[in-house]
Amino acid sequence: MQVNVNKETTLCISLAAKPSNFGTRFHNYLYRELKLNFLYKAFKTSDINSTIGGIRSLGIRGCGVSMPYKEAVIPLVDELDSSVQGIQSVNTIVNTDGYLKAYNTDYLAIATLLKEHHVDPHFTFYLQGAGGMAKAVASALRDAGFTQGTIVARNEQKGRALAEQYGFAWAAQTPVEGAQLLINATPLGMQGSDTEQQCAFPTATIADAQVIFDVVAMPELTPLITQAKALGKSVITGASVFALQALAQFELYTGVRPDSELFQQAAAFSRLPEE
Amino acid sequence: MQVNVNKETTLCISLAAKPSNFGTRFHNYLYRELKLNFLYKAFKTSDINSTIGGIRSLGIRGCGVSMPYKEAVIPLVDELDSSVQGIQSVNTIVNTDGYLKAYNTDYLAIATLLKEHHVDPHFTFYLQGAGGMAKAVASALRDAGFTQGTIVARNEQKGRALAEQYGFAWAAQTPVEGAQLLINATPLGMQGSDTEQQCAFPTATIADAQVIFDVVAMPELTPLITQAKALGKSVITGASVFALQALAQFELYTGVRPDSELFQQAAAFSRLPEE
Repeated sequence: MQVNVNKETTLCISLAAKPSNFGTRFHNYLYRELKLNFLYKAFKTSDINSTIGGIRSLGIRGCGVSMPYKEAVIPLVDELDSSVQGIQSVNTIVNTDGYLKAYNTDYLAIATLLKEHHVDPHFTFYLQGAGGMAKAVASALRDAGFTQGTIVARNEQKGRALAEQYGFAWAAQTPVEGAQLLINATPLGMQGSDTEQQCAFPTATIADAQVIFDVVAMPELTPLITQAKALGKSVITGASVFALQALAQFELYTGVRPDSELFQQAAAFSRLPEE
Repeated sequence: MQVNVNKETTLCISLAAKPSNFGTRFHNYLYRELKLNFLYKAFKTSDINSTIGGIRSLGIRGCGVSMPYKEAVIPLVDELDSSVQGIQSVNTIVNTDGYLKAYNTDYLAIATLLKEHHVDPHFTFYLQGAGGMAKAVASALRDAGFTQGTIVARNEQKGRALAEQYGFAWAAQTPVEGAQLLINATPLGMQGSDTEQQCAFPTATIADAQVIFDVVAMPELTPLITQAKALGKSVITGASVFALQALAQFELYTGVRPDSELFQQAAAFSRLPEE
């Protein structure tokens, strides 16, 4: 997409093993519409330590952090926001004159969505995954009052650790009996395949549930969301998590809060294929 | 200026204590016209070591190096091109999969301009300055066959060292007797003032000379160039040095050589004020 650049332009970046165009499109769209002299660009990195040093020394204002760096950056920053302290997983770094403060805007977005969708904290839930995003979800669920849930993760050590931290149960595979809320916090479904193999939960489990929440942002209609919609379930998509967490990043980087209409436009634009 | 950016875009940068918009405009103009998915942005840095590490780890393809980093980056790269080995001053770093090779495209541009303007190597010359750009000029003069010249530099240690390296004389101030070629390789005249205080050589010395060469690129019409033109002298401007060295950088970064017409357009565009 077209952006403006000159010597005064402030750069914000993202770091991921597999960069997407979402952040680039979301942030640059808002910079353009709000006439902010900022530029956003996604990067890979071959060395996270060196890259954080480069962010500090080049005055790169903000940095989105994706897998596999969400925990690795913790010892490299100067301060952890309260959104990070519980879950020890970072998705946002803000650089103010060389001082780096780390945030987790996924946590904030998930907490907001559980509230906006009026998901009953008495619901039982299955949460798939034990990585950085699963930690943000588990923490938001606990903080929203959920107590009867199971972390579903093949990695027993990570799964048990996450479950125990928040007082939930652990299972290696989705139990046969159902739960009212299903959340996928793994990359399953990112392929966009409509095969059941790519679906984070069995069809019978989806049929038993009331609310289905997928953190996979692209495609918006993952196999899980597609099946849930077909079965008439209430859904929360990864696209909405992505958009809300990106909005929080945008505010942290620029100090500007776009109005709701502009935010929706930027979110829609970020989901379009690259021109 | 408007540029294109997506997740595949290759970033090139420049590092300077006082960044200008020249490189940003020159390179981005050519990227756009040649439909190359590259983006160029000027930066300051608070720590050159960390920044070189960031360039390596982020896969930043190219980096222009200005004062005061032209010598400091030498121990930080993996290989010195022959254009650097003599003068030990770097203005360009090319990153190929994390392997950093340093070049001096100022040297190459100056050598080209001395040749294109048919400056007689039997000329006597005064070269003002003993910094990175003066080294590039002295080396290009020696390699072009000039032998009868004086390095004019108030810093005796630096001035003498440069003079001795290439077999030239040294003087703290411009001698009273004239020389046929005058070269300014200091920042004098960057203010764009037309006062004689900002002029790198006394008027009488300019009047005695035949060719006047200023490495200051902005303004193109420095006090030195303005006076030289008024006296009917042949001139070589810093703008032409800048454009030629930027062209060499462009080729190193992209592997593409713009044709002469497009190069002239980019050079002219880079001199326009920022829109």
